[in-house]
Amino acid sequence: MSVLITNIGELVTNAGPDGAFASISDAAVVLDGGLIAWTGAAAGAPAADERVDAAGRAVLPGFVDSHAHLVFAGERSAEFAARMAGLPYVAGGIASTVAATRAASDETLRANLHRLASEMLAQGTTTFECKSGYGLTVADEARSVGLAAEVTPEVTYLGAHVVPPEFGGDAARYVDLVCGDMLAACAPAARWVDVFCERGAFDGDAARAVLAAGEAAGLQARVHANQLGPGPGVQVAVAAAAASADHCTFLSAADVDALASARRTVATLLPGVEFATRSPYPDARLLLDAGVTVALASDCNPGSCFTSSMPLCIALAVREMRMTTQEAVWAATRGGARALRRRDVGHLEVGARADLVMLDAPSHAYLAYRPGVPLIAGVWSAGRHVA
Amino acid sequence: MSVLITNIGELVTNAGPDGAFASISDAAVVLDGGLIAWTGAAAGAPAADERVDAAGRAVLPGFVDSHAHLVFAGERSAEFAARMAGLPYVAGGIASTVAATRAASDETLRANLHRLASEMLAQGTTTFECKSGYGLTVADEARSVGLAAEVTPEVTYLGAHVVPPEFGGDAARYVDLVCGDMLAACAPAARWVDVFCERGAFDGDAARAVLAAGEAAGLQARVHANQLGPGPGVQVAVAAAAASADHCTFLSAADVDALASARRTVATLLPGVEFATRSPYPDARLLLDAGVTVALASDCNPGSCFTSSMPLCIALAVREMRMTTQEAVWAATRGGARALRRRDVGHLEVGARADLVMLDAPSHAYLAYRPGVPLIAGVWSAGRHVA
Repeated sequence: MSVLITNIGELVTNAGPDGAFASISDAAVVLDGGLIAWTGAAAGAPAADERVDAAGRAVLPGFVDSHAHLVFAGERSAEFAARMAGLPYVAGGIASTVAATRAASDETLRANLHRLASEMLAQGTTTFECKSGYGLTVADEARSVGLAAEVTPEVTYLGAHVVPPEFGGDAARYVDLVCGDMLAACAPAARWVDVFCERGAFDGDAARAVLAAGEAAGLQARVHANQLGPGPGVQVAVAAAAASADHCTFLSAADVDALASARRTVATLLPGVEFATRSPYPDARLLLDAGVTVALASDCNPGSCFTSSMPLCIALAVREMRMTTQEAVWAATRGGARALRRRDVGHLEVGARADLVMLDAPSHAYLAYRPGVPLIAGVWSAGRHVA
Repeated sequence: MSVLITNIGELVTNAGPDGAFASISDAAVVLDGGLIAWTGAAAGAPAADERVDAAGRAVLPGFVDSHAHLVFAGERSAEFAARMAGLPYVAGGIASTVAATRAASDETLRANLHRLASEMLAQGTTTFECKSGYGLTVADEARSVGLAAEVTPEVTYLGAHVVPPEFGGDAARYVDLVCGDMLAACAPAARWVDVFCERGAFDGDAARAVLAAGEAAGLQARVHANQLGPGPGVQVAVAAAAASADHCTFLSAADVDALASARRTVATLLPGVEFATRSPYPDARLLLDAGVTVALASDCNPGSCFTSSMPLCIALAVREMRMTTQEAVWAATRGGARALRRRDVGHLEVGARADLVMLDAPSHAYLAYRPGVPLIAGVWSAGRHVA
């Protein structure tokens, strides 16, 4: 059944040159068979089986959240409150979630995961990535990727999140497991391999080994890079032709050059993390002005950032990282799609997946102009009205 | 009909000494006749006509938003985007909203106002103040306060918002109007008189004159003070025993002392404004540590801050102003009530209005721990389940 959404104040298509931000005023869009069948001026719209009047509201591609950690148990609100009172964020906090996740039943993990997935969809996120990384045993990582595959095809194996406490700091021995039995158990259900390349987690050599092993098992690379301080993460990501280097908070000039020259590696910024850890924000303007492809994602996780709100990430990108509203919305849609190497989402050109968000506002700019206000008035996933 | 809400993970009552933050774990609350009839441990709860299972969720007093400008027409998203690209916020931008408001029909103003009031209620704001100030003629201010009175008893006459353009900068002549015919036309529908005491708006002498005239007409004082730079606003507010000095962004040591010594004047902080104008945040810690009573409010308006989200204000207060989660929630509930001199709202002691918010989260801290996520799972206003 085809659906015509008409009387759209602003239809963001991202159909500009090379997929750049573009929009149509007084527009309409036709969804058919789960895909975009037509876009253009409302006055010239064809008929369809069903007609939705947007009453001047804006319609955007559904958000593409390319970085999220949703398979876990427990919560860390006390750690958050302590951090806000002045304690620093360190990678080791992950261990408490690892303990809770290992102790949890499949049903507990599944209920939490599905709740977060529903919450994301209701906020306009129609495509999202989901990482393992709080199991850190062969069995617990395998069940984590298996659960993630229930809610998204964009499943990332992140056995290399931190070295779990039972390895007593013996990273080399743990990397062997990550590249061996654990990878073998996880690869069938995953599309991606990721590594937290950071002081306190994994160094450059370890990260290269994890990505190489993942690739050999058919997974594509993505990297947690340069979040907490300068380091080799971005260079490792670019050298591995990773789909994305994520965080990019502490970059050298050489890192920026590497990202600008990279043909296959997106810089994914996660401003919710800086908000929730009171860290400095990445220099998005420097990256954009250097020609780097930038994505925005939530990094939703119970420790460093427990928001799942892409609208908040957009508002933070505009307020704190000096991205324009167009750059921020593009980064949260088509940018995220590029970070997931997806051509079918993040834009509303004919043939794309009919994943759309209707705002209770006349333009995309309201996502930054009205921060915190729940502006999602409707969500369509593959042409189906789901929220 | 009485309602028992039970199995509450955390019930924030604000029933501590002198009305301080306090909460009860594993709690229940009974609503009857629009009021709180009982609070305590769930195990000891009495029966009621209806039973609601909170399933471990948190219940808080409804938010009290003591500063909002909701009677206007037009929007200023382009000005917002320009400001985010580097232009400063100046008081004069108000003039564009004044022109749009004067040109608008009553129906247009009413529809916009009621839409915003509904939006606030859905986000857990059960009491809010509403100012005039975009009319700035006798007729337009009178219709503004009349419209505001349709949605709240906390109506504020803000004829002294800016000197309108047709006065050619003759503030004295405009103040005569504000204190004369305009006041006479507005006072019957208003409870409060307010003045924007700021360079570019009204100086200390003008502010004192406006407050004195308002008081003589039966209105109580509140003041826009020290938002854009140092100035006399706080001192004027305290000297007039105003209910609140709002903004308090640029304070001298003497201003802090005056607020700390004031027995009747609350400092209302509006961090959404600093977020949306990229200004420095007020020093909430300094004020709290000095013993000042602090409220949080949205300042929802189309220019300097178009958020209506009290949860966002709480998250910003914690992240940017180093308030604890308890201080921020108190300031957004009982603090707001004090800024409106209301004893019946902002807390959940027996006899208070049954204005409650249920969060989709186990504790109040999640309002900061999960910024941007729509966490409002239920709203009761005077005992009625409204959202």
